[in-house]
Amino acid sequence: MGLRFDVITLFPDIINSYCSQALLGRGIKNKIIEVNTTNPRDFTHDKHKRVDDTPYGGSAGMVMMAPPVFEAYESIKKLSNYEFIMLTPQGEVYNQNISLELSKKEQLILLCGRYEGFDERIRLGLKPREISLGDYVLTGGELGALCIIDSVSRHLHGFLGKDESALDDSFSQGLNGLLEHPQYTRPREYRNMVVPQVLLGGNHGEIEAFRQNERIKRTKERRPDIFEKLKKDGLI
Amino acid sequence: MGLRFDVITLFPDIINSYCSQALLGRGIKNKIIEVNTTNPRDFTHDKHKRVDDTPYGGSAGMVMMAPPVFEAYESIKKLSNYEFIMLTPQGEVYNQNISLELSKKEQLILLCGRYEGFDERIRLGLKPREISLGDYVLTGGELGALCIIDSVSRHLHGFLGKDESALDDSFSQGLNGLLEHPQYTRPREYRNMVVPQVLLGGNHGEIEAFRQNERIKRTKERRPDIFEKLKKDGLI
Repeated sequence: MGLRFDVITLFPDIINSYCSQALLGRGIKNKIIEVNTTNPRDFTHDKHKRVDDTPYGGSAGMVMMAPPVFEAYESIKKLSNYEFIMLTPQGEVYNQNISLELSKKEQLILLCGRYEGFDERIRLGLKPREISLGDYVLTGGELGALCIIDSVSRHLHGFLGKDESALDDSFSQGLNGLLEHPQYTRPREYRNMVVPQVLLGGNHGEIEAFRQNERIKRTKERRPDIFEKLKKDGLI
Repeated sequence: MGLRFDVITLFPDIINSYCSQALLGRGIKNKIIEVNTTNPRDFTHDKHKRVDDTPYGGSAGMVMMAPPVFEAYESIKKLSNYEFIMLTPQGEVYNQNISLELSKKEQLILLCGRYEGFDERIRLGLKPREISLGDYVLTGGELGALCIIDSVSRHLHGFLGKDESALDDSFSQGLNGLLEHPQYTRPREYRNMVVPQVLLGGNHGEIEAFRQNERIKRTKERRPDIFEKLKKDGLI
C-alpha cells in the first residue's frame, strides 16, 4: 500500500472532488495513494453539531473548538510512520524540500481549519507540525491540504507515468533548484514566433547547454534570492 | 456586479466544485464574485482535441500547446480593468499584498497549466503576469487559481459576514503584518488546559496588550524574517 492521507475537514467534498480527478484519481485507483476524510462535525455532542464558538476576550470571527478536533484526530488509526500536520498561515512555509521529506512517510494526517483559527489547546495538546502554504490568508486549510497531497504524491514511485517526470520540475534536485528552462512544442512557427534553432538541431550537448543557460538566466532575473543561495552553495 | 474571475483550465470541475461551497458559494449567490471557466480543449482543431505535445529538443513530459491557449484567452470578453495571470512556479511568489492589489480589479483571468509547462510563446505573446503559490511543484495551476480566488475574495466588501473579519488575520494590515495571537473558545477547561485568566476578565486594554505581546512573541519565534522586517520598518 502507498502513502495514506487522512484529512480532518469540515468540507470533505472539497478534498474528495479534487482527489478524484486526473493524476490523483489515477494514483488512488493504482493504490499509490489513499485519501480519507474525517469530519469534526461527526464528533460533536450537542444537537446543533457545533464546531465553532466565539473567542474568549472578544473580537470578530469564530474559533474552531478543541473537543471535536481532538476526537476526530483520535478516531484516525495511526500507521507506524505518520506525521500530523496543521495547515495554518502561522506555520513554517511549505517548499519542495518539505514535500520530498513528507513523501517518505507512510501516513500524513492533515488538519484543516475554518473560521478565524483554532482553539490554542489543539496546538498545545496535539502538537501538530504547523505548515503554511505561503504568506496569504485563505478561508480554510483545504487548499493547503490539497497542495500537500498533490505535491507529495508526485515524488512517489509510479505516480507519474513513464512519460512524465518530476526530475526536471522547477526547484527539483534534477535542476539543482533552478527554475525550469523555456519549453516549446508544435507548431514550429506560431503567430510569427519561432522555436529556437538549437532545439531543432538534435545536438544534445548544445540543447542541454542552451537550457542550462536559460535556467540560470531566468532564475537570476526572477528569483535573485534563489540565485544567490545556489551560488553561495557552489551549485551554479 | 462584483469581481469577475475567468479561469482557463483543462479541469473546470475542480474550479466549479470548490467555488460552489461555503463562503465562495455564498459570494457567488450574493453576486459579490462571479467565476467562469474556459477550457482550451474547446479550442482545438483536430479530432483528438489535443492540447499538449512533446517538447522540441526532447525530455520527459508534455508541453501545453500555444494555439488552444491563445484562442481560449481571446474568447474571453475583457472588462475595462482586468489583469491576466499565469500560475507557474516560475512567477513572483504570491502574498497578502498581491491579493489586496488584485482585489481592486474588475476581472482576473487566471491561466492554469498542466503537464510539464507552457509553450514559451504563450508567455511571449500574451505577456501574462506570472504568479507562483510558493516554492513547490503541483500537477496543475488549478490550486493556485483557487488560492487567488479565495484570498482575493476575502477583501471584497460584503464577502465576509458581519461576524467575520479579514482585519485580524495573520499578515493583515489590522495586525501590522504580524502573525495572529492565540485564540480560545469554550470550554474554559479542556483536558487540564485552561483559558488564560486575562481573556476572562473583560478588561479590554489588558486583553489587547496580552494579544499584541503574543503576536510579537510568536512572529519573532516562528518568522524571524517577518519580525526583522517589521522592526526595520518601525512597525513594532
